[in-house]
Amino acid sequence: MANTTTAVIGTGVIGRSWALVFARGGCLTRIYDASAAQAARAREWLAKTLALAVSDGFMTNEQAVSAEQRVSICPDLESAVRGAAYVQESGPENLEQKRNIFAELDRLVGPQTILATSTSTLDIQEIARGLAGGRRCFVAHPFNPPHVVPAVEVLPTHGAPAELINSACEFLRRVGQSPVLVKRYAVGFIGNRIQAALVREAIHIVESGVADVDSVDTMVRDGLGLRWAIMGPFGVANTNADEGIRQYYGRYGHAYLALMNDLGPTPKFDQQMIESVARGVDEMTGMEPMADQLHRRDRLILRIRQLKRQG
Amino acid sequence: MANTTTAVIGTGVIGRSWALVFARGGCLTRIYDASAAQAARAREWLAKTLALAVSDGFMTNEQAVSAEQRVSICPDLESAVRGAAYVQESGPENLEQKRNIFAELDRLVGPQTILATSTSTLDIQEIARGLAGGRRCFVAHPFNPPHVVPAVEVLPTHGAPAELINSACEFLRRVGQSPVLVKRYAVGFIGNRIQAALVREAIHIVESGVADVDSVDTMVRDGLGLRWAIMGPFGVANTNADEGIRQYYGRYGHAYLALMNDLGPTPKFDQQMIESVARGVDEMTGMEPMADQLHRRDRLILRIRQLKRQG
Repeated sequence: MANTTTAVIGTGVIGRSWALVFARGGCLTRIYDASAAQAARAREWLAKTLALAVSDGFMTNEQAVSAEQRVSICPDLESAVRGAAYVQESGPENLEQKRNIFAELDRLVGPQTILATSTSTLDIQEIARGLAGGRRCFVAHPFNPPHVVPAVEVLPTHGAPAELINSACEFLRRVGQSPVLVKRYAVGFIGNRIQAALVREAIHIVESGVADVDSVDTMVRDGLGLRWAIMGPFGVANTNADEGIRQYYGRYGHAYLALMNDLGPTPKFDQQMIESVARGVDEMTGMEPMADQLHRRDRLILRIRQLKRQG
Repeated sequence: MANTTTAVIGTGVIGRSWALVFARGGCLTRIYDASAAQAARAREWLAKTLALAVSDGFMTNEQAVSAEQRVSICPDLESAVRGAAYVQESGPENLEQKRNIFAELDRLVGPQTILATSTSTLDIQEIARGLAGGRRCFVAHPFNPPHVVPAVEVLPTHGAPAELINSACEFLRRVGQSPVLVKRYAVGFIGNRIQAALVREAIHIVESGVADVDSVDTMVRDGLGLRWAIMGPFGVANTNADEGIRQYYGRYGHAYLALMNDLGPTPKFDQQMIESVARGVDEMTGMEPMADQLHRRDRLILRIRQLKRQG
């Protein structure tokens, strides 16, 4: 898949970030949005974000200019996907709309083209059902924003050829992402399930008066999150005892059980809870402008990734 | 609390790491362990770890030598705590033993001395019950290892004077830690509850065949964990919608509910589960020597902390 031509269909917050991933990764990147105004905004965002990457020292000016030149806005779906080896769809999160787009894509592109969707909730079996080229369809679900956070959940259709899965993962790796294979559909795949588990208990801790919003967030960002940026939960467990995870789970399994059985229930996402948590967030952020919060987050994550590459 | 004299009681994995925190932070650090051999091993570990900090570029040789010179092994509890402004106890995780040590400490030290315990499970109310100086007793629960991970959970006794709480937190900040206030006792305080919630779902994902160990860990270390090293769960939610957490929870509350209600139950920590997860870990780590895993973790976390200080 050298000199890959890619197509980005739908250019909202996720789609535009994918376009940056591909263009930065050296791919010719064609973008299409049913709303021409949205596509134009995406192009503006790309220019601004590339300029920021230059001023933050992540790219040279030359690299940014080349990346921008690789992106072209297409007037219709057909011209966007013509000759594309990889298509990433990031349209509305709606099964019927995705089925329609994928039916059209399946007709328009050759049999070797990989068709990926950014869906965070839908099953690829449903989206690709009945399509002649159903097996080359994938979920490639990114985390927000994909040009900063590399993990991408890859869920193939049942019976997709191993070669195709490998090829899709290889392509994602080549543009700097970190593909994560999901073996079967489950609501929320892997990442959103894990996040929901953590958020559920975080809200429970605040609602039950054990700690306030800032304490919970400090605990994560100055504690657990520092380890999780380097190692996942199993890697952490493995390093918590001299003899590794067998010894650690063997010794502390009963303590974990007691703790897990004491965790809180699913909260109500009602106005009262939201407002009470939101006030804690207002206090914690000191109402720092959102653009500054996002810029700090993105800049630091990209720097952490540089550190990890250096080892 | 300038030029603080500290005492570290118990010098296992956690105690010795506390000694490094205090000595590195400029405190005169007296260490005592009922086992003289254990105290001697702690001193060896300190020398080795300081040398590593120098070769990794975190300290100058001069700083390491000064830190080491600030540590002295004491032959008994009394000489260790004499004149100490802050005592950190890290003995066995056993209520009766902690009650006995605290009764002795309370007798030995002046009324201004702060008495902290590293307990991860016990309530300070139980440990300090009946002591004349009960109110100056705290939980100061670190994450492993405290000389690398800054978060420390601080749980005061009921009715502890605000001034004392502030003073303890101020001291912990001064030696580079990040105190997190726990408002009332709950099993696992904040961090271990949040960790247990995440681990429970991580195990469920593996056991139910949605993904393997390496996929779950990659999802965290190349995805969620990168954000959590910068922002806690509420900070992340706040940056997931242009208008912040009110808009985000308002819009996706129902999706979160569906997800939370689908999360897995508490797993059995039986031999079969442990062995199946452990095999996944063996594969993932490629049996990399434990010392190398730990060194990479610690080095990268310390570098991330440097990045965050620079903003």
